[in-house]
Amino acid sequence: MKTATFLNRDEFLNHWQGHRKLTRRTIEKFPEEEFFTFSIGGMRTFGELVKELLTISVPGLEGIVNKDDKPFSHDIELADKAAALKMWDEQTEQINELYNKISDEELYETFNLFGQYKDQTNNNLMYFHDNEIHHRAQGFVYLRALGIEPPFFWER
Amino acid sequence: MKTATFLNRDEFLNHWQGHRKLTRRTIEKFPEEEFFTFSIGGMRTFGELVKELLTISVPGLEGIVNKDDKPFSHDIELADKAAALKMWDEQTEQINELYNKISDEELYETFNLFGQYKDQTNNNLMYFHDNEIHHRAQGFVYLRALGIEPPFFWER
Repeated sequence: MKTATFLNRDEFLNHWQGHRKLTRRTIEKFPEEEFFTFSIGGMRTFGELVKELLTISVPGLEGIVNKDDKPFSHDIELADKAAALKMWDEQTEQINELYNKISDEELYETFNLFGQYKDQTNNNLMYFHDNEIHHRAQGFVYLRALGIEPPFFWER
Repeated sequence: MKTATFLNRDEFLNHWQGHRKLTRRTIEKFPEEEFFTFSIGGMRTFGELVKELLTISVPGLEGIVNKDDKPFSHDIELADKAAALKMWDEQTEQINELYNKISDEELYETFNLFGQYKDQTNNNLMYFHDNEIHHRAQGFVYLRALGIEPPFFWER
């Protein structure tokens, strides 16, 4: 077992917030009229995918910090892109605050996130991060299909 | 600065290899006849995206381990899916070996990867990981557009 640090806790937060900036730019570039209507191959719209992201990150961190295992619900009201961007920006601060309330030890403790994802907290947080990259990439394809150039992947 | 470990070096390797298993399943599910032909909105085919992944991970690790900053080239011969899967499996072992040759200190040293990505080695490795999730997600949309159900994202 090699347990030296690969990524420290500040690095993870900065890295994730960098990805969140890119996702924000992806939302900004998405045409308003297609946000909740356009899809490919029966997939969810980008608006629905963004709802998923908004209902995982902060609610998940709240669950971890408060040791509350209540289930998630992706079913939130989100009138338009402006509402999505407003909630996105509010969550930027909330994520910083909540994440910093997790102790170093708690990152390595097992918690039954949302009452069903029993895993080490660092793994659950990596899932939030990876899941955002995954869904944003789907948004990139939607943008291309709509003839719009996505933001640069490497720009955070 | 909070520098406690978020992810240790074995955890990162296992996490990445888990994602690589999922990417492998995505290649397996892709129809042979569409692998180098199907695309959406002028994007690269999934075959070309897989070439990119194959020419970043092991060549990048070789560069890091040998302190060799030669540029990458995504232009490799890959006849078909079988050839892609063969190279994928060979790289699974190569990645384990090369990654374990990087010292704990080197993960935090700055290296000019491929002669152009000057960053801490742990950041460059995170880029490999994130970039794979990103391009595989594009493959998921291609599969859906072709009427094929992708593998489960959470199955590694």
